Amino acid sequence: MIKTDYDLVIIGAGPAGLTAGIYAARARMNVLLLEKAAPGGQILITDWIENYPGFPEGISGYDLAEKMKAQAENLGLKILTAEVHSLNFFKESKEIVLKDRSITTKAIVIASGASPKNLGIGEDKFFGKGVSFCATCDAPFFKDKMVVAIGGGDTAVQEAIFLTKFAKKVYLVHRRDELRAEKILQERVFANKKIEIIWDNIPTGVEGFFGVEGVRVKNVKTDEERTIKADGCFIWIGILPNTSFLNSLVKTDTFGFIRVDTKMQTSVPGVYAVGDVRDTPLRQISTAVGDAAIAAVSSEYFIENL
Amino acid sequence: MIKTDYDLVIIGAGPAGLTAGIYAARARMNVLLLEKAAPGGQILITDWIENYPGFPEGISGYDLAEKMKAQAENLGLKILTAEVHSLNFFKESKEIVLKDRSITTKAIVIASGASPKNLGIGEDKFFGKGVSFCATCDAPFFKDKMVVAIGGGDTAVQEAIFLTKFAKKVYLVHRRDELRAEKILQERVFANKKIEIIWDNIPTGVEGFFGVEGVRVKNVKTDEERTIKADGCFIWIGILPNTSFLNSLVKTDTFGFIRVDTKMQTSVPGVYAVGDVRDTPLRQISTAVGDAAIAAVSSEYFIENL
Repeated sequence: MIKTDYDLVIIGAGPAGLTAGIYAARARMNVLLLEKAAPGGQILITDWIENYPGFPEGISGYDLAEKMKAQAENLGLKILTAEVHSLNFFKESKEIVLKDRSITTKAIVIASGASPKNLGIGEDKFFGKGVSFCATCDAPFFKDKMVVAIGGGDTAVQEAIFLTKFAKKVYLVHRRDELRAEKILQERVFANKKIEIIWDNIPTGVEGFFGVEGVRVKNVKTDEERTIKADGCFIWIGILPNTSFLNSLVKTDTFGFIRVDTKMQTSVPGVYAVGDVRDTPLRQISTAVGDAAIAAVSSEYFIENL
Repeated sequence: MIKTDYDLVIIGAGPAGLTAGIYAARARMNVLLLEKAAPGGQILITDWIENYPGFPEGISGYDLAEKMKAQAENLGLKILTAEVHSLNFFKESKEIVLKDRSITTKAIVIASGASPKNLGIGEDKFFGKGVSFCATCDAPFFKDKMVVAIGGGDTAVQEAIFLTKFAKKVYLVHRRDELRAEKILQERVFANKKIEIIWDNIPTGVEGFFGVEGVRVKNVKTDEERTIKADGCFIWIGILPNTSFLNSLVKTDTFGFIRVDTKMQTSVPGVYAVGDVRDTPLRQISTAVGDAAIAAVSSEYFIENL
């Protein structure tokens, strides 16, 4: 078997990458985890998590990230702060190109996550303080509150309906005069007394001091601006997989999310994709850790059979 | 829409069932969880868990079960102690038959788990005290120790090889004079200096006081009995899905594990299967919670679209 720097390199240290690291380190694989920023991924900007099983009172995103990182490091995982520039796949090895050098490995787990598209109107100041990208995650924190939701596609409409189980009122702000969402979802949103659609409007700012107090919107037909008072702002204008380094080397779906089989293997043998970056039906910490356990064990069998 | 007692009934309160309960309760579904014994499932007989992400020093199976149960109940989940006898599926509802009554529901999540086949030689006294059914879970606890492994199929051989990363020596006890495992695995096991195969032997007893100290084996050709000194005993003679109540109502694979699609839906719309009972490539707490989150969210969309 050809000699490589590592058996397995994991790209990304969110819950998915850290879990793959926990499994690989525990299986005594020669493994390295690469993370371009701080370990934790998107949960670092998540204020409070109630639906990851094992924490009866919930846990802050920061604390959960720290715990997962400590667990991986206790088991011997090496974490290197480095950004992946590109990948090269050869017959018997794989190369990961970093800024100043490249490393070789037998298998790769891609756990680079996805990023919600931002509005770019200063909403980042309020991440975890009223601005959210996930109703399944955060809707219960807005019980009997006023919420602004932004978007017009399937996700936006489904999530807005879900929000009405908790919120007193949901303003759905959409830039056009009709929704893109499928008809059955549209019917449901029109029938929902708690939802008011603000047509032809785009958000221009998020207002507040400690947390969200209102969302400024502008009518694209009249240029009129006004502030909608709200305690929360949910943004669903799409998410993008973090795959700039991939350069189309593995197959993706039409949105760019990486396709995998039931063992989390991509179209390239020995290359796995887990968590938010793959074509998953649900993007949650729970699903990320499940994917990652499967990929780590799959990669081990892959290497043993090389 | 037809009226039913519940929107969703979850069968089984292991990590999979409790997670489905956490998601469903948090989504304000009218949900009931049925468990025939104590909530926790197989993790209740797991001494120590190191690979469920979020617990840097590990956690006992009992404590993790308690935490997941408390979390589900904090979110409002109702748990009923009752055994499911059978299911009936009608056009617009599903019926769950218990001992003394039946309940109706719109959707079902089957999380009834699987049971490792026991040897029936008193090994149950040592569950979590040296007897294990999962090398991925427990091998690191047997670093530099002597271990007896029982079985001859693919899983047994793969897991025995994995054990040698930690154990000083692995005695693989097999009742025949050849292995059932695939050839490539056999080659690997024969080449592994740490593995000694004890052919033509069956285990007849587990010996020890506080924990495993030895495994008694009998040669089926000569009837000779002896004790192999060992600190651990891994049993891989197969696992069985807990599906006696199912009566072939949903499609299974050849081993009886329930087939699901990527949304965890079985061959019957509105009926989902998660965790060990489904045709999963890996049976871990991490994978169970991932499956369950997907099934709970899928069931919610299913009900909204009825």
